[in-house]
Amino acid sequence: MEDTMIAETPRTEIDRIIAAAAAAAEPAAATTPAERARWLHAAADALEQAGDELIPLAARETHLPEEPRLRPELVRTVFQLRLFARVLTDGEFLDATVDHADPAWPMGPRPDIRRTMIPMGPVLVFPAGNFPFALGVAGHDIAAALAAGCPVVAKAHPGHPELSARTRDVLVEALTVAGAPIGMLDIVSGVEAGVTALRHPDIAAATFTGSEAGGRALFDIAAARPRPIPFYGEFGSVNPVYVTAGAVRARGTEIATGFVGSFTLGAGQFCTKPGLLLLPVGHGLDETLRAAVESVPGQAMLDDRIAAAYRAGNERLREHSAVTVLSIPSPRDDPFRPTLLRVSAPDFVKAAEALGGECFGPTSIIIEYADDAELRAVLGALEPGLTVSVHAETDEADLVRPLLPALTRLAGRLIWNGWPTGITLSWAQQHGGPYPATTAPAFTSMGPAAIARFLRPVAWQGFPDTLLPPELRASNPWGLARRIDGVRVQGNIR
Amino acid sequence: MEDTMIAETPRTEIDRIIAAAAAAAEPAAATTPAERARWLHAAADALEQAGDELIPLAARETHLPEEPRLRPELVRTVFQLRLFARVLTDGEFLDATVDHADPAWPMGPRPDIRRTMIPMGPVLVFPAGNFPFALGVAGHDIAAALAAGCPVVAKAHPGHPELSARTRDVLVEALTVAGAPIGMLDIVSGVEAGVTALRHPDIAAATFTGSEAGGRALFDIAAARPRPIPFYGEFGSVNPVYVTAGAVRARGTEIATGFVGSFTLGAGQFCTKPGLLLLPVGHGLDETLRAAVESVPGQAMLDDRIAAAYRAGNERLREHSAVTVLSIPSPRDDPFRPTLLRVSAPDFVKAAEALGGECFGPTSIIIEYADDAELRAVLGALEPGLTVSVHAETDEADLVRPLLPALTRLAGRLIWNGWPTGITLSWAQQHGGPYPATTAPAFTSMGPAAIARFLRPVAWQGFPDTLLPPELRASNPWGLARRIDGVRVQGNIR
Repeated sequence: MEDTMIAETPRTEIDRIIAAAAAAAEPAAATTPAERARWLHAAADALEQAGDELIPLAARETHLPEEPRLRPELVRTVFQLRLFARVLTDGEFLDATVDHADPAWPMGPRPDIRRTMIPMGPVLVFPAGNFPFALGVAGHDIAAALAAGCPVVAKAHPGHPELSARTRDVLVEALTVAGAPIGMLDIVSGVEAGVTALRHPDIAAATFTGSEAGGRALFDIAAARPRPIPFYGEFGSVNPVYVTAGAVRARGTEIATGFVGSFTLGAGQFCTKPGLLLLPVGHGLDETLRAAVESVPGQAMLDDRIAAAYRAGNERLREHSAVTVLSIPSPRDDPFRPTLLRVSAPDFVKAAEALGGECFGPTSIIIEYADDAELRAVLGALEPGLTVSVHAETDEADLVRPLLPALTRLAGRLIWNGWPTGITLSWAQQHGGPYPATTAPAFTSMGPAAIARFLRPVAWQGFPDTLLPPELRASNPWGLARRIDGVRVQGNIR
Repeated sequence: MEDTMIAETPRTEIDRIIAAAAAAAEPAAATTPAERARWLHAAADALEQAGDELIPLAARETHLPEEPRLRPELVRTVFQLRLFARVLTDGEFLDATVDHADPAWPMGPRPDIRRTMIPMGPVLVFPAGNFPFALGVAGHDIAAALAAGCPVVAKAHPGHPELSARTRDVLVEALTVAGAPIGMLDIVSGVEAGVTALRHPDIAAATFTGSEAGGRALFDIAAARPRPIPFYGEFGSVNPVYVTAGAVRARGTEIATGFVGSFTLGAGQFCTKPGLLLLPVGHGLDETLRAAVESVPGQAMLDDRIAAAYRAGNERLREHSAVTVLSIPSPRDDPFRPTLLRVSAPDFVKAAEALGGECFGPTSIIIEYADDAELRAVLGALEPGLTVSVHAETDEADLVRPLLPALTRLAGRLIWNGWPTGITLSWAQQHGGPYPATTAPAFTSMGPAAIARFLRPVAWQGFPDTLLPPELRASNPWGLARRIDGVRVQGNIR
């Protein structure tokens, strides 16, 4: 709906914006990580200071409440920018590697060869609608791309056009004052503008966070370019949660209420919403689950398009012949109160294609398994995603261990006695997984390692020291940890 | 030509082979890096011992001479397998990262989260024709995939079918005796078999080394799968070489003969063949170049298909109106004696699309530049590739420095006073670059870092120590270097 109201950026303006990004690529690549860290700190400070203006704007456009959603999200977004500044200061992202010449190298004399990382060039970002700050124009992909030294063109999300434009202005001013090249960040608007930009020869990589339908169309366009580019698409996830009989016995009520809290958080509009809960037959949690679901008030959804897609998906699941209802909103209720369904494990396996996909919104399905064989059959029928969670008792390690290969196959993050919603940002974070979770399973889209998506390695063979990038010089002027002749040598930063 | 003589692997046999690979994926993922290092040593030993049988077979099928090509190539291939065993022992490829729970983490309390790498699953490899060992069934992609713990299905190259089959047998026996799961390695034959395998849902990633025409078709198939997979294609490269006026004055003859040696090596059938030599106008090297070219004997090409493509490409370049001839074989000569052409920088820029692509075989073009502006225009018109080389004097650093951004844009490896042919294998090696050099510019296809193509990160959140992969446990049983709470902590391996 909103899409039709967004003014399409005209072709000439798209060309101007991408030309500015392309012109910024070389000066940006020439900056030091320390300079880019200053840009990111400036952007973080400016965003923080603009909070009182931006948060009401975001609330109006997305229907998300200021608390507990938008204020904490802004804190996260500001932290994210500063975390990438720390990534730059630390310098490990360069993976600086020095191999000295070795006339006795077993395959034949080895020349001096050294490798570091350089920015890929202008990055096109399609931000998500559900986190207007953290996955928006100041969000995860933009922070990582700017940290890498790549100019960014973002396609403003139709769900929050004004917020996108204001966020752009705040960031551009901060970046410019901090000394970033003109053209490091800009936005375009409209579906056609996004496609035009994705086909532009000066775009070197693209990212997308959203539905598989829209994202796959863009992936296909990126792959069909005369010169294809890396496309980092994150399309969604079912996030199954497996609960052992022991965990049900020890703390079934806590698990049931935790589950309902997680799948209804933010009206279920999270890529990490737990869409399937695997419970042992005879769990006895029906009443607890029902009461928890019915205590959740109705919530507005992000926009009419998402609401319409949710209604259709919810109805499709609810009316599937294998499914029974645990709790649905009565017809007079707010339609966006949560829905909880139920299916037996054997029925789920038979209907996995219909029941095992993502339904973006406050709906989830209980799968009841009778024994280990049924549990394994369900795990084998699930599609890969971003997360898998396990609720088990500490003394059940021997029960869970044999299932780990099947669980690991399914996801990029495994969670023990916790819920998939809530993604911390730290060095070990991994937000990704095999398709359809992402189109690039070797990468993460969140956390410090996400910078790797926008870098490419370059080796320098036999170069004089004075022409090498600083991180490869004999003097190691930035004091980085490096790998020298195969041996990791500590730096002197910390 | 040869293609039509290759028996296509029947569909049932392809299914059986991929099912065996899929069945091997879980036991392979459960092995330790030390176990896989033993597999690779066993494979290297077996290949070395089979050399006297395999080298004559390779010579017969590829027309490559035993010396100086096939024996050194086998040494390289054996070394490559052992180098990946060292990668496994060293353990840095796991990038083991541990973040302890931190209630004071600025974005909100942080759970315990730890990340390591797991194998992607079965890998389909399309080996190259020009290096039947180093890029063949015992070659770079297979070594890296096995090291990662991924079962491999290789599509035998039509240029050396018998060698492919025998190499498979030698490796399979060695791997099996060393304890690798059944199904870790097998081959299929024929164009249709390769496509069928690439579409198979159990294939998790694919690699290809060869021409852009064939490789792009496979890339498109991988991208069009219901679940696309990472496709690591290496399609070729022009490998321009820039020579300064100072270098011509100081050692023009040496450069001219070095260049001719490099572009005619192996009948120019290297992805790193220098296809363009940028010389200053008035270089005075015509006679030296001509004499060097004419002293090179004719060489057989790999197969009839490659020879036919080369003839057509050579003729297209030779007859281009902007091109003049420095040396071509006379009609009575062996047609595979080298060709050296010449074009002015302005003419090259105008015809860059026609003249700037790869011609696989013993042809190269001299581009003569009058000044810095012409040189820069040529660099701006070149397509990206695997390498760029610079020949300059040590006191010319200030002349070369401003050109580095333009040179770096063009390639994954920059070479100083050397030739692009000859790729060492060491930690810093980078063999890759923007399209059409490769479809995945964030990776290398050669050297230790190539293992990253077949791994995906997995994070473990809140897991009990006993269920974590060994490299993430508190006791760090393998003694790896790890990143703990953001700080690199030395291991105790070395």
